[in-house]
Amino acid sequence: MRISLLQLNTVVGDLAGNAEKIAAAVREAAVHRPDLVVTPELALLGYPPRDLLLMQGFVARSREVLDGLAADLAGAPPVLVGFAEPNPGRNGRPLYNAAALLRDGRVAQTFRKTLLSTYDVFDEDRYFEPARGPQILRVDGHAVGVSICEDVWNGYDVRNRRRYRTDPIEELVRSGAEAIVNISASPFTAGKQGLRERMLSRIAREHRVPIAYVNQVGGNDDLVFDGRSCAFDAGGTLVARGKGFDEDLITVDLARPGAWRIADDDFEPESEIWRALVLGTRDYARKTGFSSVHLGLSGGIDSSLVAAVAAEAMGKENVLGVLLPSPYSSRGSVEDARDLAENLGIRTVTIPISPAMDAFDGMLAEICAGHPPGVTEENLQARIRATVLMAISNTFGSLLLSTGNKSELSVGYSTIYGDMAGGLAVIADVPKGMVYRIARWLNRRSGRSVIPEQVIAKVPSAELRPGQTDQDSLPPYELLDAILHRHIDCYESADEIVAAGFPPKTVHAVLRMVRAAEFKRKQAPPGIKVTDRTFGTGWRMPIAAKEWQRRE
Amino acid sequence: MRISLLQLNTVVGDLAGNAEKIAAAVREAAVHRPDLVVTPELALLGYPPRDLLLMQGFVARSREVLDGLAADLAGAPPVLVGFAEPNPGRNGRPLYNAAALLRDGRVAQTFRKTLLSTYDVFDEDRYFEPARGPQILRVDGHAVGVSICEDVWNGYDVRNRRRYRTDPIEELVRSGAEAIVNISASPFTAGKQGLRERMLSRIAREHRVPIAYVNQVGGNDDLVFDGRSCAFDAGGTLVARGKGFDEDLITVDLARPGAWRIADDDFEPESEIWRALVLGTRDYARKTGFSSVHLGLSGGIDSSLVAAVAAEAMGKENVLGVLLPSPYSSRGSVEDARDLAENLGIRTVTIPISPAMDAFDGMLAEICAGHPPGVTEENLQARIRATVLMAISNTFGSLLLSTGNKSELSVGYSTIYGDMAGGLAVIADVPKGMVYRIARWLNRRSGRSVIPEQVIAKVPSAELRPGQTDQDSLPPYELLDAILHRHIDCYESADEIVAAGFPPKTVHAVLRMVRAAEFKRKQAPPGIKVTDRTFGTGWRMPIAAKEWQRRE
Repeated sequence: MRISLLQLNTVVGDLAGNAEKIAAAVREAAVHRPDLVVTPELALLGYPPRDLLLMQGFVARSREVLDGLAADLAGAPPVLVGFAEPNPGRNGRPLYNAAALLRDGRVAQTFRKTLLSTYDVFDEDRYFEPARGPQILRVDGHAVGVSICEDVWNGYDVRNRRRYRTDPIEELVRSGAEAIVNISASPFTAGKQGLRERMLSRIAREHRVPIAYVNQVGGNDDLVFDGRSCAFDAGGTLVARGKGFDEDLITVDLARPGAWRIADDDFEPESEIWRALVLGTRDYARKTGFSSVHLGLSGGIDSSLVAAVAAEAMGKENVLGVLLPSPYSSRGSVEDARDLAENLGIRTVTIPISPAMDAFDGMLAEICAGHPPGVTEENLQARIRATVLMAISNTFGSLLLSTGNKSELSVGYSTIYGDMAGGLAVIADVPKGMVYRIARWLNRRSGRSVIPEQVIAKVPSAELRPGQTDQDSLPPYELLDAILHRHIDCYESADEIVAAGFPPKTVHAVLRMVRAAEFKRKQAPPGIKVTDRTFGTGWRMPIAAKEWQRRE
Repeated sequence: MRISLLQLNTVVGDLAGNAEKIAAAVREAAVHRPDLVVTPELALLGYPPRDLLLMQGFVARSREVLDGLAADLAGAPPVLVGFAEPNPGRNGRPLYNAAALLRDGRVAQTFRKTLLSTYDVFDEDRYFEPARGPQILRVDGHAVGVSICEDVWNGYDVRNRRRYRTDPIEELVRSGAEAIVNISASPFTAGKQGLRERMLSRIAREHRVPIAYVNQVGGNDDLVFDGRSCAFDAGGTLVARGKGFDEDLITVDLARPGAWRIADDDFEPESEIWRALVLGTRDYARKTGFSSVHLGLSGGIDSSLVAAVAAEAMGKENVLGVLLPSPYSSRGSVEDARDLAENLGIRTVTIPISPAMDAFDGMLAEICAGHPPGVTEENLQARIRATVLMAISNTFGSLLLSTGNKSELSVGYSTIYGDMAGGLAVIADVPKGMVYRIARWLNRRSGRSVIPEQVIAKVPSAELRPGQTDQDSLPPYELLDAILHRHIDCYESADEIVAAGFPPKTVHAVLRMVRAAEFKRKQAPPGIKVTDRTFGTGWRMPIAAKEWQRRE
């Protein structure tokens, strides 16, 4: 029972391109003489296709391409290809999330997903009808149970609850499955692979069946898929694992115990997140047609880390650092930004912004007369910088990366249409504390201070007025990040966070800032998901909502 | 069987405030001696509460407030209050979308929603478990079937398909219901009330039961609820209807045939959409805490209409029109903007933008040297204007309204961080053709040219370069709107639109523009939904996706 797992990086919507990629990978796999080749979930469409699925034309065209692929692979081993299958009934949602078995030049059989992910970033109930009943595939004389992604994710959660009323794996085993195949598109978050492997191992052990799990790889908007397809024997032992954050082809024989190939990997959070950011940035640029990127370099830790990610993702020659000093920029900051650029080998350009500051000051003098300088002037600087950076984008066709971190984005310590501007917010899901950890990790890994030590050491400041520091407006980042983690990732409200021992006044102040920043986040660029709960697709908060929590 | 329908305008998340509002309305209704009082769906929480539902603290607090409300209303008639009920089982999603019967000072019974809306702007499967089996309420000796919103929406669609496998109304009637109550939060789209009334009338006729339907009213972010709660006798005849776009209290006796009160209304699309925009703008400002708004006035039709909406929504004294002429602004445009402001009685301020244009030209001279002027310079003007408008927002705490229409937003004929900037995009869901129709309707209704005739008559132009018109870049708006309607509202792809007789080259060009503008729309402010398919919550398209349609 040899199974080849195609860990592919498809492009959403690119039916023809994805079919070609699948065909090429199947041919490559064929030399290993597999009994079955398996692609990731919805591989023909790219995951997540989102509302493309609502267009009948897209679904119809994908079926034509699928039939073409089947014909093209007539001589190849049987292949399970993820696709969207129209629901032939008159009742229920219009599609199934399915896998087509391509054999002998045609679609010989289809298999449907039972448990539909509708939480966090997922909206599958929007499109799909759940499968009814288990589906068995005969391979090499063996009964293989075919499952799709969420079908394996129905364990008890921290509250001892299960989200679904059925367990498709149990049903497959009861129907005689001797092995389980799971075709997935499971997005990366830090630490997720451990969770996946523990869960898959437990299922294998509990049901005494081997499992082969294939995951997609690549960045699609806010989501990065980390690959790491893997297989377990019937005792729950890991026997194979594909690369992280790269395409791979893994062949295992589920009937023959023993280790196959377990790719080197590194599960340190800093390393994982770094690779996710690099792949997410590279793929966002590539899949939207950009070959170069640029960003504002302030000499601070955030833009320094984003520049380092960009250099690794795009190649240093394709990254432009833009220094936009104002009269409030310290000389140190400008030097730090130049040092960083030199360390990375990226080009820089320096455009002082005071001419525009003076122009706006004059234009606004009359209407703002009598109002003391404050947030207006601070935001003006950020928006002037964004205007320059977008002019560079328009002129050179380069992708602007924004550099705000998750802590800032949470509490709205950022300027909308200012430093929030960009096509991709690279570290928008990385809390400030983790930004520092990754910077230090990067320097250790590189054996030199790629990110200058003084950038890591200095007190964080937006430098929008003389002597400003972030802690004038925010609690210390360590405290802030801990409160935000509880509120955002763990869904805790003020009472619960206070009960855990955090200072009530700070907790309430932080949560008020989070709520007040909702309108800004609604207009934020996509950020690369690396934590359990990311602003964007998986964060759906009302803006015009009133505080419901009791005041301290 | 007297039923009072409370058509309320609640605030999302405002548990205490909503409870007070419900209590006051119940007391007002009590004078009509109803056997039952009914609130809209999730009335205690405000609809849609979205991810507030994921916070256990919010749900727990709402239950406390519900119990308090029950105690508070101990002497009042029984009340059905929409709330979120925790799922007591260990399996399934954590909540039910439910209604609590408050009677004798406590929660006497609960009723759960069966069909969960998970399409367009709705995500109910994200939070809720469906009810199992029908739920009957005894009122005045009669059996009343309680249903919640979507439970009545399971007819066959244009493709002769039903989204759900069950029909809760049929089950209620089979279980002995002599009347149906439906508690709803059904957002406005143009023409929707006709659809609702035809559907409710058909259900009443088919099952020979009277129906009372209560809908929420008010604007919540992108959604406007139009109220228009109504009732039908068992023959399917409309016997009562509440006001459109305003709170109301409707009492009917379902056992006594004959008309009760049918509020005057106007179903002309221009009138409906106008009122939706006014309520949507007023409530967005009110519920986010703004008492004044401002917007850029270009002298064009879009900003003129938005100014008129703003003046009606906020009161003319709370609207500031900002004229931001550039050297490319025609004298006519400035005069048109002043005429409009005078007609509306709103204040204006004029801030020429050339000082900032000159400053940026100088700052960018070196880096842009050798690049002919083009989109960069055009976008610069738009971004300078946004920067001024946001400075006014920061200085005066006023809400910036953006003025782009749906046709522009569809094809990306707009500048991100420029004219797209604002807290609310008032007409972002109004196609250009409808913008003109509403302007003409408004002038007719007013008996004078509130929107100057020359604004309606002149050729549309962004005035970002000398002699520019919109049709330099876009097909005529009539053709553009027709193609966009098919693509966006009807989910048609290029092949289908071309097959319907539209010019292939134009169709492909338009659809390419729609796809390429995805990244801009991802960062757009919320727009008020008035059509079947609105960019925003109900439009979930990938950005980094490749074209799948065959080229012409």
